[in-house]
Amino acid sequence: MIELQELRKEFEQVLNEFSVPSEPNHLYKPIEYTIENGGKRMRPLLVLLGCKLFSEDVSNAVHPALGIELFHNFTLVHDDIMDNAPIRRGNPTVHEKWNDNVAILSGDALFIKAYQELIQTRHEVLAPVIEVFNRTALEICEGQQLDMEFEDREDVSIADYIHMITNKTAVLLGCSLQIGALIGGASEQHAQSLYNFGLNAGIAFQLQDDILDVFGESQKVGKQKGGDIIANKKTFLLLKAMELATGNKQSELENLLNQNGSNSEKIAAVTAIYDELGVRELAEDEMWKYFDQGVKSLDAVDGSPKWKSILEQFATNLMHRES
Amino acid sequence: MIELQELRKEFEQVLNEFSVPSEPNHLYKPIEYTIENGGKRMRPLLVLLGCKLFSEDVSNAVHPALGIELFHNFTLVHDDIMDNAPIRRGNPTVHEKWNDNVAILSGDALFIKAYQELIQTRHEVLAPVIEVFNRTALEICEGQQLDMEFEDREDVSIADYIHMITNKTAVLLGCSLQIGALIGGASEQHAQSLYNFGLNAGIAFQLQDDILDVFGESQKVGKQKGGDIIANKKTFLLLKAMELATGNKQSELENLLNQNGSNSEKIAAVTAIYDELGVRELAEDEMWKYFDQGVKSLDAVDGSPKWKSILEQFATNLMHRES
Repeated sequence: MIELQELRKEFEQVLNEFSVPSEPNHLYKPIEYTIENGGKRMRPLLVLLGCKLFSEDVSNAVHPALGIELFHNFTLVHDDIMDNAPIRRGNPTVHEKWNDNVAILSGDALFIKAYQELIQTRHEVLAPVIEVFNRTALEICEGQQLDMEFEDREDVSIADYIHMITNKTAVLLGCSLQIGALIGGASEQHAQSLYNFGLNAGIAFQLQDDILDVFGESQKVGKQKGGDIIANKKTFLLLKAMELATGNKQSELENLLNQNGSNSEKIAAVTAIYDELGVRELAEDEMWKYFDQGVKSLDAVDGSPKWKSILEQFATNLMHRES
Repeated sequence: MIELQELRKEFEQVLNEFSVPSEPNHLYKPIEYTIENGGKRMRPLLVLLGCKLFSEDVSNAVHPALGIELFHNFTLVHDDIMDNAPIRRGNPTVHEKWNDNVAILSGDALFIKAYQELIQTRHEVLAPVIEVFNRTALEICEGQQLDMEFEDREDVSIADYIHMITNKTAVLLGCSLQIGALIGGASEQHAQSLYNFGLNAGIAFQLQDDILDVFGESQKVGKQKGGDIIANKKTFLLLKAMELATGNKQSELENLLNQNGSNSEKIAAVTAIYDELGVRELAEDEMWKYFDQGVKSLDAVDGSPKWKSILEQFATNLMHRES
C-alpha cells in the first residue's frame, strides 16, 4: 500500500536523524549498534497509524513513534542478557559483543533516550501519553518476569500463558496505537478501543509466531525452526498438547520433553504428536478468536474510515504471513 | 531545624504510602526491599526545599520528590550489579540476595515507578521537569560508565575525576533542586541558578566523602575506613598524590598501589604519604572552592530568604559532617 510506504518513509526520516554522542563510547556505541541492527519497525508504524485515524498531520507523533521503537529495543537488550541469548537478528547481542555491564548500562541509557523522544509531542497530551507508556512498560517487565518463571514451573495453564504473552508483547502494540490516537486528538474512549484492537491483535500475532516456529516454512522463518520445541518452551501448542494427550501419547510426550536426544528427531516426534492431537488447528482457532475480537474493537473506533481500513489490512496481512 | 523536620515528615508520609503489587514477587519484592533499606533521603528533601524557595505549598512536589528517590535507588541497584558490590547500607545487595536477572529487571521496574511518581505534578511544568530529569539521568549513566572505565585507565587527570563525579553524583543534587524550583513556580533562570548551587555543592560533598573515607572517624564512617585506598580508587586524594610525589616517594606510592600485602599496612602507608604531601588540605581547599561557588549561585536566586537560609544551613551542616 502506497500510504503505508509513505508513512514508513516519514518514520525512517526521523530514525535516520537520531544520533547519540560518541563518548563515552561503551555507553553510546551499543545504542547505535542496536538501532542499526534493524527490525520490522512495526510499533512506530502503529503509532503513526493510530495518529492518522484522527489527524492527517502526524508530525507530533513521529518522535513518540521513535521513542516506542527505542523502548522496544531497550527491552530486547536487557531481555537478551537475562535469557543468555547470543544472537539477535543475525548479529551478536550487545552483552555478547561487549559484556553484561555494557548491556545493562547502555540499555538504561537507551531507555532514557526513549523517554526523550516520547515527550516530543503536544503538551496537552503529554500526561496521558506518558501514563499509558509507563503502565505498559511496567506490564512488559511483569511479562518478562513471568516468562522466565514459566521455564521452571510445571503448573503453567493456557490462561497463564495468554496472560504472559499479553504483558510481554501484546500491550506494547495496544500502547503504540493508543499513544498515536491520543496525539491525533482521539477521545479517551476511542483511544482505548484502538488499544483493545492492538492488544487482541498482538495476542493473535504471538500465537501465530508460536505456530510458525513449528509449522512455518523454514527458509522463511529466519530462525531455527522448532526452536520452541527444542527449548521445551511452554507455548499454546505444547500446553494444549499436554492437556489433550492421554495414555501412551502422554508418556511419549513427557519422555520427549525430558530426553536429550537429537534435536531434529525431537522436533519431528513432537510435531507428529501435535498433528495427531490437532493442536495447530486449535491454536489457529484461538488466534482468529483474538484477532476477530480486536477487529470488533477497531470497528467501534470513530476514526478516518480510509485509515481504519489501511490499519485493518496491515494487521490482516501480518496474520497471513508465512514467517 | 524544625522546618526541615516538618519537610522530612511530609516526604516520609508519601514514602510510606508508596506500594507495589505483590506479584510477580521476584519483580516487586526487590523494590520494596530496596526502598525499605533506608538511605538519608537527601535528594527528595532537596526537591521539597527547591520548591519551598518559591512556594509555601509543596503538595505538587512530594510525588516528584519520591520519583527522584526511587530513581536514585534504581541507579544503586544496577550499579551494584556492575560493581559486583555485595553489601549496601549493611544489607545484601539485590543481585546478591536474589540474582543478577532479578536485579536487572526489578531495577528497570523501579525506574518506571520513578517516572510514574515524577509526573504527578502540575501539567504546566511537566515538560521542563521531565526534560531536566531525562538529561540528568543520561549524565548519570555517563558518570557510571566513566567510573568503571577509570579503574583500568592509567591516564586519569583530576579534571577527568571532577567530570566523572559531577556526572555520577552531583547532577542529581542540582536536578532535585531545579525540579523542585520549577514546580514551585521559579523562572527558568532562577531554577538554573539553584541547579548550579546543587551541582557545585554536590561536587564538594563527593570530595568530602573521599576525604572522610581516609581521614574520617572510623566508627562514624559506617563503612570500611580506607576502602578507597584498598581498591586503588582514583579519587582526588590519590590523583593529587600521584601528581605531587617525586623520587623515592613516587616509587613508594607506586609500589603500594601494586602490592598485595596487608590492607591495614597499605592504608597506613598511603595515608602517611597523603599527610606528607598535604593532599588532605588541598582536597579541602578544592572542596570549599566548589562549595563557595555554589553558595554564590544560591545568593543569586530570587527565592524566599528564610528557605534560602535553611537550605544553605542544611548544606553547610553536610560539609561539616564527620561521617
